[in-house]
Amino acid sequence: MKLDELYSGLTLETKAKLALVVLDGLGDLATMGQGEMTPLEAARTPNLDALVAAGCAQGRMTPVAPGITPGSGPGHLALFGYDPLEYTVGRGVIEALGLGLELKAGDVAARANFCTLDRKGIVTDRRAGRIETRACERLCGLLAAKIKRIGTAQVILKPGKGHRFVVVFRGRGLEGPLADADPHRDGLPIPQAKPLDAASAKARKTAELVAAFYAEALPLLARESPANGFLMRGIAHRPDIPRFEERYKLKAACLAVYPMYKGLAQLVGMHKIEGPQTLAQQFDRYVAEYDRYGFFFIHYKRPDMHGEDGDFEAKRQAIEEFDAALPRLMARKPDVLVITGDHSTPCAMKGHSWHPQPVLLHSAVSGSDKLDRFTETGANLGSLGVFEAKYLIRLMQAHARMFDKFGA
Amino acid sequence: MKLDELYSGLTLETKAKLALVVLDGLGDLATMGQGEMTPLEAARTPNLDALVAAGCAQGRMTPVAPGITPGSGPGHLALFGYDPLEYTVGRGVIEALGLGLELKAGDVAARANFCTLDRKGIVTDRRAGRIETRACERLCGLLAAKIKRIGTAQVILKPGKGHRFVVVFRGRGLEGPLADADPHRDGLPIPQAKPLDAASAKARKTAELVAAFYAEALPLLARESPANGFLMRGIAHRPDIPRFEERYKLKAACLAVYPMYKGLAQLVGMHKIEGPQTLAQQFDRYVAEYDRYGFFFIHYKRPDMHGEDGDFEAKRQAIEEFDAALPRLMARKPDVLVITGDHSTPCAMKGHSWHPQPVLLHSAVSGSDKLDRFTETGANLGSLGVFEAKYLIRLMQAHARMFDKFGA
Repeated sequence: MKLDELYSGLTLETKAKLALVVLDGLGDLATMGQGEMTPLEAARTPNLDALVAAGCAQGRMTPVAPGITPGSGPGHLALFGYDPLEYTVGRGVIEALGLGLELKAGDVAARANFCTLDRKGIVTDRRAGRIETRACERLCGLLAAKIKRIGTAQVILKPGKGHRFVVVFRGRGLEGPLADADPHRDGLPIPQAKPLDAASAKARKTAELVAAFYAEALPLLARESPANGFLMRGIAHRPDIPRFEERYKLKAACLAVYPMYKGLAQLVGMHKIEGPQTLAQQFDRYVAEYDRYGFFFIHYKRPDMHGEDGDFEAKRQAIEEFDAALPRLMARKPDVLVITGDHSTPCAMKGHSWHPQPVLLHSAVSGSDKLDRFTETGANLGSLGVFEAKYLIRLMQAHARMFDKFGA
Repeated sequence: MKLDELYSGLTLETKAKLALVVLDGLGDLATMGQGEMTPLEAARTPNLDALVAAGCAQGRMTPVAPGITPGSGPGHLALFGYDPLEYTVGRGVIEALGLGLELKAGDVAARANFCTLDRKGIVTDRRAGRIETRACERLCGLLAAKIKRIGTAQVILKPGKGHRFVVVFRGRGLEGPLADADPHRDGLPIPQAKPLDAASAKARKTAELVAAFYAEALPLLARESPANGFLMRGIAHRPDIPRFEERYKLKAACLAVYPMYKGLAQLVGMHKIEGPQTLAQQFDRYVAEYDRYGFFFIHYKRPDMHGEDGDFEAKRQAIEEFDAALPRLMARKPDVLVITGDHSTPCAMKGHSWHPQPVLLHSAVSGSDKLDRFTETGANLGSLGVFEAKYLIRLMQAHARMFDKFGA
């Protein structure tokens, strides 16, 4: 028997409320330069401290596998309980989700960027001098006005920042991944986007579609400036992922501000709640929607942004902002509350990392690990140990008393 | 190479003595109502403390998988090192073992209970008003006297408590699981016990056997009271599990008082030692049998019973009773001693739970985790970390120096 089948077979429908608060990039490193403290350790967190005193279990979560630094896609898929090695989501799909496009299962998406080509079709600047967003929008508009379909497939274009945009092909029987239509350096022609799996008829069909798109689009750009060509990378289809609600018997809501996280939540079938722009507003909205859902994913971006900047002080303040807002969430305490990150973003590294993120779990049956605070160092001593992120929601379900006993 | 093959290939025969003392349901939660203490933390345990002071490794064990609450069957199979997802043991088999029936591989067992039927065969009371054990014994005797065999299969009946009994079919080519011959509510006829896997010829044969048993048995009960029918559930065969002695190169003895645990030990081929009724007697018997076996499974039921009752004080006392008896075991110290549970049974939950149970391991090479006592909170800090129960005996073997080096 597979473990997921065991979980599914034991799952009971309950009225429990589960809340997963993701402080993006929360985990950090205690480095000498910062008084041997992490931002979470340095932050004043009276409300979090009170929660810990009320009885919590702590531990650390390996986002994907030891040593693997996840992007937002695999990081969140794992958090949502989907093994990111089993459910791979291509870069094009992530980029499309990040731009707020609502993809359907089977849609093929590609990251694209405008470039310059010489008369022989050789790439002379892969980013066309990093053209301005406004120019990108104009060129996308030009293509979108002329190309609505290729064969039976619908073509959707969405400009991003600078030279970047996204192309989505929506039709039957398409499949990625394809090799990049990008030479990855200047001085070469645009290669054909060939199927990575030559045996896949769907991928071959998709490759023909991309070639046909190029054949129609390049002539439209031929006399344009500052870019007269484009490259496509990470060409992949939106995989068909088991829906959250079926998997967990929990109707789920997403309270995120950034499109990428809304997109990732939507990928697993969560309902997007639009409107809130600050964490305080997100928590208030959680309270307002409390009766309508069983599971709430609440995403807070700031800690990751400041970690990426290497700005210790700003990351500490972001955590304090979270702490100040926490009582709004606790106005209607969920039956199971988890506070964690999707990965670590240590200030000292100015980027995502593989270091297991700290996790706090509070429920009527979490017991107490007798720790004073929620910190990386404290979490090392907790009863949850170090575990893989893909088990987090299963643990939350257990604490919500959603699992029947296994065997007699 | 599979991990089990690696372990087997490296296993050496030694004269080491390994003892696994299972305090059933030992793990608990530190809750505010009990001064933020678990029964293990609240108990006075001078002998256990002395053992810890002598140098022990501690950790916590996930009984099956994160969030999964095991029954005694999967809990003990995992403790014995058999993945309970690979070796599933049906409810009927567990019930039969619990009544002390010695099942052979391939035996099909069902939980049964007497019920009342109206003239049309509709179930009017699934438990026949919860008839007395004496009435159950009489009705089982009546059936057993008339039905010895169905076709080539032997039929074994054993009464349990109240309306409950067990039916075992012993013959060639039988296999479960079958759907229940139980409508699960009153007002419906007894459904046929159909194979869950319709493709299994053995299961189809077993379903015919069950139908033939009903055809012979129901007429015998037709004029009886207080019950005139019966239902059968959890119809499954005893799986063929690799024998403990072959798997570990350890001749194993079971020192348990309750039939269920003797049965589970026997399922993997341990030798049952009968006689002892108290933990002190079990430890004395261990000393007496020391030279005859390499592995001792010593099972102590009390902590689980009191946990199920939510009786913190009684669970604490049960642990103190264990501590008082411990010197009897230490009269002939095993080379490797493990003290743990099969799962947690937190008083606050009045039932089994998924919370990893604490583990203590003492050997000449366990080193010291420098902890003062053996407790849940202490075990969180131990060198064993949080690990899956199925690795426990492998760890014990390692500490017994039973594994050769892997590779050069």
